[in-house]
Amino acid sequence: MATTTEANALGYNLKVDYVIHYSFGDSDQAQAIAQLEKLLRTLANAGLECEVRQGDETSLLVFVRASKKRLNRAVYRSRVRDWLYGIRNAEPEPASSIEPQNEGERLRVINHMITLPTEEGGAGITPNHGEWKNVTGLLPLHDEETNKKWLHEWSQKTFLSEEDLDQIRDKFGESVGFYFAFLQSYFRFLIFPAVFGFSCWFLLGGYSVVYTLVNSLWGIVFVEYWKRKEVDLSCRWQTKGVSAVETKRREFKPEKEIRDEGTGEMRGVFPATKRMQRQLLQIPFALLSAIGLGVIIATCFAIEIFIAELYSGPLKSYLVFIPTILLSALVPTMSAVLVSVATKLNDYENHETDETYDSALTQKVFVINFITSYLPILLTAFVYVPFASHIVPHLDIFRLTIRPFVSDEHATSADCSHFKIDPHRLRNQVIYFTVTAQIVGFAMETIVPYIKQHALREYKEYNKKKNGKSENNGDKDSPERSPIMTYDDPLEEKEFLKRVRNEVELPEYKVTDDLREMCIQFGYLALFSPTWPLVPLSFFINNWIELRSDFFKICMEFRRPTPLRCDTIGPWLDTLGFLSWVGSITSAALLYMFCGDNQLGPNGEPTDIKGWALLLVIFFSEHLYLIIRYAVQTAMNRLEPPNARKERGERYLMRKRYLESTLKAEANEGTEKEDLVSEVPPELTRSALEEDARRNSGHSADPAERFWMRQRGWTESAKVGAGIIQAQPTKGNAKKQQ
Amino acid sequence: MATTTEANALGYNLKVDYVIHYSFGDSDQAQAIAQLEKLLRTLANAGLECEVRQGDETSLLVFVRASKKRLNRAVYRSRVRDWLYGIRNAEPEPASSIEPQNEGERLRVINHMITLPTEEGGAGITPNHGEWKNVTGLLPLHDEETNKKWLHEWSQKTFLSEEDLDQIRDKFGESVGFYFAFLQSYFRFLIFPAVFGFSCWFLLGGYSVVYTLVNSLWGIVFVEYWKRKEVDLSCRWQTKGVSAVETKRREFKPEKEIRDEGTGEMRGVFPATKRMQRQLLQIPFALLSAIGLGVIIATCFAIEIFIAELYSGPLKSYLVFIPTILLSALVPTMSAVLVSVATKLNDYENHETDETYDSALTQKVFVINFITSYLPILLTAFVYVPFASHIVPHLDIFRLTIRPFVSDEHATSADCSHFKIDPHRLRNQVIYFTVTAQIVGFAMETIVPYIKQHALREYKEYNKKKNGKSENNGDKDSPERSPIMTYDDPLEEKEFLKRVRNEVELPEYKVTDDLREMCIQFGYLALFSPTWPLVPLSFFINNWIELRSDFFKICMEFRRPTPLRCDTIGPWLDTLGFLSWVGSITSAALLYMFCGDNQLGPNGEPTDIKGWALLLVIFFSEHLYLIIRYAVQTAMNRLEPPNARKERGERYLMRKRYLESTLKAEANEGTEKEDLVSEVPPELTRSALEEDARRNSGHSADPAERFWMRQRGWTESAKVGAGIIQAQPTKGNAKKQQ
Repeated sequence: MATTTEANALGYNLKVDYVIHYSFGDSDQAQAIAQLEKLLRTLANAGLECEVRQGDETSLLVFVRASKKRLNRAVYRSRVRDWLYGIRNAEPEPASSIEPQNEGERLRVINHMITLPTEEGGAGITPNHGEWKNVTGLLPLHDEETNKKWLHEWSQKTFLSEEDLDQIRDKFGESVGFYFAFLQSYFRFLIFPAVFGFSCWFLLGGYSVVYTLVNSLWGIVFVEYWKRKEVDLSCRWQTKGVSAVETKRREFKPEKEIRDEGTGEMRGVFPATKRMQRQLLQIPFALLSAIGLGVIIATCFAIEIFIAELYSGPLKSYLVFIPTILLSALVPTMSAVLVSVATKLNDYENHETDETYDSALTQKVFVINFITSYLPILLTAFVYVPFASHIVPHLDIFRLTIRPFVSDEHATSADCSHFKIDPHRLRNQVIYFTVTAQIVGFAMETIVPYIKQHALREYKEYNKKKNGKSENNGDKDSPERSPIMTYDDPLEEKEFLKRVRNEVELPEYKVTDDLREMCIQFGYLALFSPTWPLVPLSFFINNWIELRSDFFKICMEFRRPTPLRCDTIGPWLDTLGFLSWVGSITSAALLYMFCGDNQLGPNGEPTDIKGWALLLVIFFSEHLYLIIRYAVQTAMNRLEPPNARKERGERYLMRKRYLESTLKAEANEGTEKEDLVSEVPPELTRSALEEDARRNSGHSADPAERFWMRQRGWTESAKVGAGIIQAQPTKGNAKKQQ
Repeated sequence: MATTTEANALGYNLKVDYVIHYSFGDSDQAQAIAQLEKLLRTLANAGLECEVRQGDETSLLVFVRASKKRLNRAVYRSRVRDWLYGIRNAEPEPASSIEPQNEGERLRVINHMITLPTEEGGAGITPNHGEWKNVTGLLPLHDEETNKKWLHEWSQKTFLSEEDLDQIRDKFGESVGFYFAFLQSYFRFLIFPAVFGFSCWFLLGGYSVVYTLVNSLWGIVFVEYWKRKEVDLSCRWQTKGVSAVETKRREFKPEKEIRDEGTGEMRGVFPATKRMQRQLLQIPFALLSAIGLGVIIATCFAIEIFIAELYSGPLKSYLVFIPTILLSALVPTMSAVLVSVATKLNDYENHETDETYDSALTQKVFVINFITSYLPILLTAFVYVPFASHIVPHLDIFRLTIRPFVSDEHATSADCSHFKIDPHRLRNQVIYFTVTAQIVGFAMETIVPYIKQHALREYKEYNKKKNGKSENNGDKDSPERSPIMTYDDPLEEKEFLKRVRNEVELPEYKVTDDLREMCIQFGYLALFSPTWPLVPLSFFINNWIELRSDFFKICMEFRRPTPLRCDTIGPWLDTLGFLSWVGSITSAALLYMFCGDNQLGPNGEPTDIKGWALLLVIFFSEHLYLIIRYAVQTAMNRLEPPNARKERGERYLMRKRYLESTLKAEANEGTEKEDLVSEVPPELTRSALEEDARRNSGHSADPAERFWMRQRGWTESAKVGAGIIQAQPTKGNAKKQQ
């Protein structure tokens, strides 16, 4: 009985909201103690309770929970801010009766209480930065029981429901929620091309016009659907317009301080023109990336062709692996170098807010990703196949490099004239990237880290035991080994603290990496799937696993992400649109070049490719794509997503109530001023007419007043009007008179 | 002395806000009188004073002015609505202290008082519609003196200032203001290409690469600049987001009534999918227009070529005018038919709001305009020049048609083999459309109506006099001529009423026609100006006049427009973008085809045009255009227009004040709860430790509470933490120990 209670309590993480990882390894003890004291005082002042426990040898764990009263007040403040920024429609109820809506909001608000600057009502603790550089981590704890329950449930169903997505959002915040919603929508949308692609493959084979058209149309519809879905979700999750609330980057270096004319406050500014000049560096960077990666890929490619199709010397069966090994070694290295350059460039651009910084970095990284992912296939399709017969003879230079190692006889036995283009090369490459590479990616991203992590823990455990023993044995060889390695935790907290220590060591989860993976995958579908119509089927199966494995990954291999709000998948949305556009060009070109009607020449190259026809096909395909996209966009804009309609309805009701109350106030006020509208006309007696005349002759009044006083009240006007009408021989009267 | 006062008063229109034109010609007298009475009662109930005067034979003039109190209340209501829709930042001050900001707002609000449905606080009078079909007009009166003053001022300066634009907006409302602001921006932007184009023309002649590139870039920058300018103006004029307030179309026919789930109200709906199906009719319509107009234009074109370049029979000097006459007669007729079809289609689409209706109609009309404006030049450039030698021989069919009229000898004297392409044809055509047609357009649009109007008035005057005389002469031949033709107006109102009667007869001004004219003009610049780089210079001169003549036109030839708010030039903005895009294609193609390097063949046709090269040039040009446009858009988005910054500053201040007051309220409340943060630690005496042990052993508390009670207050936590830190042999300590 007691154990189950304890298990539950552990499941609820002993009501811990956040764990602060406090490292003191780098600073001297007195300073570390002073810092710790400051940290705890600051937290207490912000209304947060603390408990301190030992972390590892050089760190402490500070457990934090928020007091109910202060939390509610922070929630209220956060909602008022939302209301002022137009994210919420209604003004929030007073602080006393407010509650965080869900775990996500609770954690987000507490995170703000800890990290926001003091002038915005937070404690101003900035992990890894400035005076708080000892604070190396700030993380909520995983809710393991729920995670396990969900993993089990999801493995038994195909689609996640809206409620499942809501739950993810409640646990991990909107940004992770948006990723899973995207993945789920994408997965659901893949059903159609998977089935259709399979049919086309079965009936028509590759390079079918029908499949290409349908695939392109599907891409447009999916991207536009997702745009609507984003609006829908942001209404459902009440984050619409949340990107308006920008968070200032801590690393932003203002060039000068100016007094804002509008607000009268001092404000650090960095001229936009100067930033733009710096951003121009992106152009050489993109060129550099293209050349750097392009040269590596093209060279490996050339070597591969040379070895596989020209070379027939010794060791061929081993040599064929050289290009693959080179590629696997060089491309990731080069990518890493380029990504670090991109990050430096991005830092140099000195963005003012986190949002613009992230989006600028995403763009730069996407350029690198685009090249590494698609260039190999593009080279095969648009360089190797049409121009191989011109290029291959030049590959002889490789012969020179191997001449020192092999006998002349072998080297010359290779003969260019026998060279034949491998007609399946393109398809095989597409299959490699859309099936093999996906499986390898899954293994590298989910399984390998999991095994590594467990191995590392085992190793540490083993080490600790060994040290403990050697300590007992009086071994003096390792004086720096701490004697407290076997932490003297209270017995009932042992399990819990062990788990927390493990979680603290995990890396932070970045949702953008997973989104990138999906966008690149979408790119293969848009750009190259006409080559092998089974691509969507492969992705459909892959993504069923991906969705579960990503959740598993977040739960097991990463710290629990701090909930972040967002109303879009951000720059990746543009990327999807861009890829689908490029797809309209490449698909058309592939179709024209490799469609069955083209005769293959003696070398296996398509002979009757005509430049003008290829360009014409591309021109038409691209513009057809743009027109259809415009039409689909227009149509989609007309269909209002259900949650957006609901939100609009609420807004409308709120406005109506307000306006009605205004009108009512007027009506009450209006009862007293009936003097204007008197239904009883003043009699048009002789005396009244005389008075009129008197008024008219009174030249003292100004002409406008004389004009307006000629008829008193609407009844008199009506009489005068009736007089004029009756005086006119209208058509009806004229007829009667005749 | 008295006359000047009167003149001033006349200038101020005797404080009349609106004139309602009430026609009773079509209904019988009793009904007309009842209707009039109802109208006047309704107006009086809405807080409007009335005066009735005679209009012409079958109409009355009802003069309306708003009482100050009711007007202020309506202004308040309008501002509250704006505030609820997020158009204004601050909640408006109470109704008693509010004043209309300018004449534009005053007239707009009074217009709403008259026309808005009763449930929204108006009088519900809907001119020309339903029960109010006798009300045939609702117009404010021109402020002639100010108009004259401005016309005089503007004729003496080159650029209008921001204040001039503000004044236009104050008089005629934001929609006219936006048109003039656009015209002014466009005019100012034209300086650069005018100068640059002149230099290029002087130094390089036509078809210069430099000019084409600069022109294209200029187009991009101008369109993007205008987008920013629109935001700036809408902030300056406080109309940002005004398009969110949609006005329901009166003609909208709901298919069924449903209860809105969100608001609980009955609401007429028309399914969006059904509307979309109806909108698909646009495709056959566009094809029909293209074919209809295309056939007419191409035929006239062919006849022209035949007569001018092949035919050498008799009457040639007269026959050359045939195609021009045919074109001038047929194209406007066909256009008119197509526009009426477009209007019917648009009605059939059953749009819910005025905004969507207008924008859909604009799109349809633009298709027609595009064809009539640009097709002739496109035909010359891309059909006549490259394919003339294939087509011209087929023009012999015209010979058959003229055979009956001329002798055989003459007819056969024309010889196809001698045919030579006129190399200047394209340039001459561009000159015609960009100079001659602009002048003719100006005359047709401004001068001719003015003369016509005056002539008509003279004629009426003359007629009236004659009738008056014949009346006096006792002529009984015209019994339906009214005896009151010489209106018995009060002497001092004579001039004023005459002017009002004239204004009532004027047509309504539609800003969209003028905007269309400018967009079409921009199209010539974007699409064809490489042919003749003086195009921008011609437009620059033309637009100086255009700006003044349009103002003159609005003042003299149209009713004063009722102020309408808007925050954009609407669908025309997309049109500008579209034209500049198409320009990137046509410019590149023209450049490649007619650039000096191309040899002319024996027939005068360019010989070495290669299909693939042309398409490649187009492909590169278009994508270069798109990339540059993306870059310019990104750059422009970073630069915040001054008024937008100001508006953001105001919004920020408003939020800050509110949040600060929230924080202050909390701080006041917070003074009492210092119990959490006690600086004095409870002494760690023996008894305290014993108490700790007791607490820990108390298994009745749940584990979470036990966890959180282990350390009391932050000071105890700090002590525990310090203990752990000191126990660790940190690097520093380890070194000291050594």
